[in-house]
Amino acid sequence: MRPSLRPGLRDPSAQINARNGHGPKSRIYRRTRSAPLANYGAVEAKCVAAVQQRSQSIMHLSFVKVAIFLTVYLGVGTMCFYFVRHQLEGDKTKAVLDAVYFCVVTMTTLGYGDLVPNSTLAKLLACAFVFTGMALVALILSKAADYLVERQEMFLTKALHQKCGPIEVHKEVEPKSVRYKCVTVFILLLVLMASGTIFLATVEKFDFVDAFYCVCCTITSLGYGDKSFSTEAGRVFAVFWILASTTCLAQFFLYIAELNTQHRQKALVNLVLTREVTKVDLEAADLDDDGVVGAAEFVIYKLKEMGKINQEDVRLVMKEFEALDVDQSGTLSIKDVTLAQSS
Amino acid sequence: MRPSLRPGLRDPSAQINARNGHGPKSRIYRRTRSAPLANYGAVEAKCVAAVQQRSQSIMHLSFVKVAIFLTVYLGVGTMCFYFVRHQLEGDKTKAVLDAVYFCVVTMTTLGYGDLVPNSTLAKLLACAFVFTGMALVALILSKAADYLVERQEMFLTKALHQKCGPIEVHKEVEPKSVRYKCVTVFILLLVLMASGTIFLATVEKFDFVDAFYCVCCTITSLGYGDKSFSTEAGRVFAVFWILASTTCLAQFFLYIAELNTQHRQKALVNLVLTREVTKVDLEAADLDDDGVVGAAEFVIYKLKEMGKINQEDVRLVMKEFEALDVDQSGTLSIKDVTLAQSS
Repeated sequence: MRPSLRPGLRDPSAQINARNGHGPKSRIYRRTRSAPLANYGAVEAKCVAAVQQRSQSIMHLSFVKVAIFLTVYLGVGTMCFYFVRHQLEGDKTKAVLDAVYFCVVTMTTLGYGDLVPNSTLAKLLACAFVFTGMALVALILSKAADYLVERQEMFLTKALHQKCGPIEVHKEVEPKSVRYKCVTVFILLLVLMASGTIFLATVEKFDFVDAFYCVCCTITSLGYGDKSFSTEAGRVFAVFWILASTTCLAQFFLYIAELNTQHRQKALVNLVLTREVTKVDLEAADLDDDGVVGAAEFVIYKLKEMGKINQEDVRLVMKEFEALDVDQSGTLSIKDVTLAQSS
Repeated sequence: MRPSLRPGLRDPSAQINARNGHGPKSRIYRRTRSAPLANYGAVEAKCVAAVQQRSQSIMHLSFVKVAIFLTVYLGVGTMCFYFVRHQLEGDKTKAVLDAVYFCVVTMTTLGYGDLVPNSTLAKLLACAFVFTGMALVALILSKAADYLVERQEMFLTKALHQKCGPIEVHKEVEPKSVRYKCVTVFILLLVLMASGTIFLATVEKFDFVDAFYCVCCTITSLGYGDKSFSTEAGRVFAVFWILASTTCLAQFFLYIAELNTQHRQKALVNLVLTREVTKVDLEAADLDDDGVVGAAEFVIYKLKEMGKINQEDVRLVMKEFEALDVDQSGTLSIKDVTLAQSS
């Protein structure tokens, strides 16, 4: 009989699955810890709270970073275009306002053409700012993807330094569904479009079709330039409204793409889980070559089939496992780990 | 002693790792099949060939799909704008050419403004085309991401129907490194920029700075419109060159973002693999609750820590495992699978 590390704790959801799905079972698999354990109690509760706080602060940090980049970019851009203001031609209002407005119209690749550079210096400046502006917009949009990696990193760094244990890393924060985010962004987009149309109709005195046409030309960053913001009040509004609405539309398209990928991945998972397991599959899945396939081996095999992990991922971890398994029993126990770490 | 499904086949690369990394080992883990096996020989060789062919044909299919979408889009767009050609004002050349050119300038959100709609119908048409054009560009760019899911699906469908076995699914096609793709796209971009500058300087008679400025305004889809293609030859060139160069720049930014994410993920993997394993880790990793952590259990635990898989992925596969493990031994053998599939 093998020594148990802890009194067996059975997962109620697994029991329900076993009962409903495939008749009575005497052996039920535990889930790898993801629910708080009674015997960790207070420590874990503290950890979870710390994690939630940390998670919020990362989110906060990301936004602060983006805000700083954007401010620096617009600040430098405004200064540059203010100094070359006599080399810009077109509809002008106040010098500083025009510089900010030109900067925003350039960085979002809107390019109305109501203000255009007419000297070599101003033209090259515009070229430099449109490229860096595109990179900045890409940075803002990729923050969402990066955020996940960042969160995982923070959890780990915390686990390393505060000895809170591994539970928090494996604790799952329920992500908001993509469909929900999609709808939210779409509603925000409609609000922005409506406010833009109303503003253009009242302040810039466009008729309704022209106002709507100008809104569409702007949020898509098309910017033909036949209709644009030419009053002082219009340009102040434009600076904020253009940044918000172009980002919002881009984000909407990203979520649509994500939704599409998610649907396909779900179909793939179904395909993997419903196909018949053959003798060849069992041989291929038998990672430790003991003639039978354990639960964990089966999970790895199927996740590879779903494309979620690859051979290189498995190889790297196996290398660490071999280094830790000092007595070469094929399994890790506390003894192994203590021995490996003391040597 | 447990029955072996097959004479033990040891992976030479694992042996090398064991030898170089952590001293001599008597027990060496096999890799889950990813190299062809001698005893499958001819069948497998045929499968691999079929897979490679299939992989190419999927790639081909993706491109064909994109080409069809683009052709239909440009065809419908050209027809629409040809019919409303008297409601477009600005620099005109030939009617059909102007319609294609206007369509491309709109769908890429370039919007020079050298041709602008001046009726309600034409304005609404332009709005409709810029939105669908953006969606189409998003589709083209997301093809690369989708391609991976698609390939995995095709492999599986094939394995299901042709009984080629699971080897091909787990066979790894070495992906071209992101850095390599990044450099390739960058070189292509430079070539496109150079050809555009030379063309504008010779055919449109711009001086060098203006030609370069117009190229930068175009590939970023900025399109102020003070410099654009106004000759017939220029607009023919523009239709192809604009589509190629804007897509190329967007792809370049995508690769840069991917490179950045990859770097961060590598750092995360290192962090996970170098941190000390504790007693709490071992307890959490012990999936089948037998008091010790097997190799596969350790792999799953670490991959969760890296954020590559989550609890839901594991839960779904575990459910299938339980359904297959008819004798409830905690391991799958041929007997289990045969029994499960006959009932």
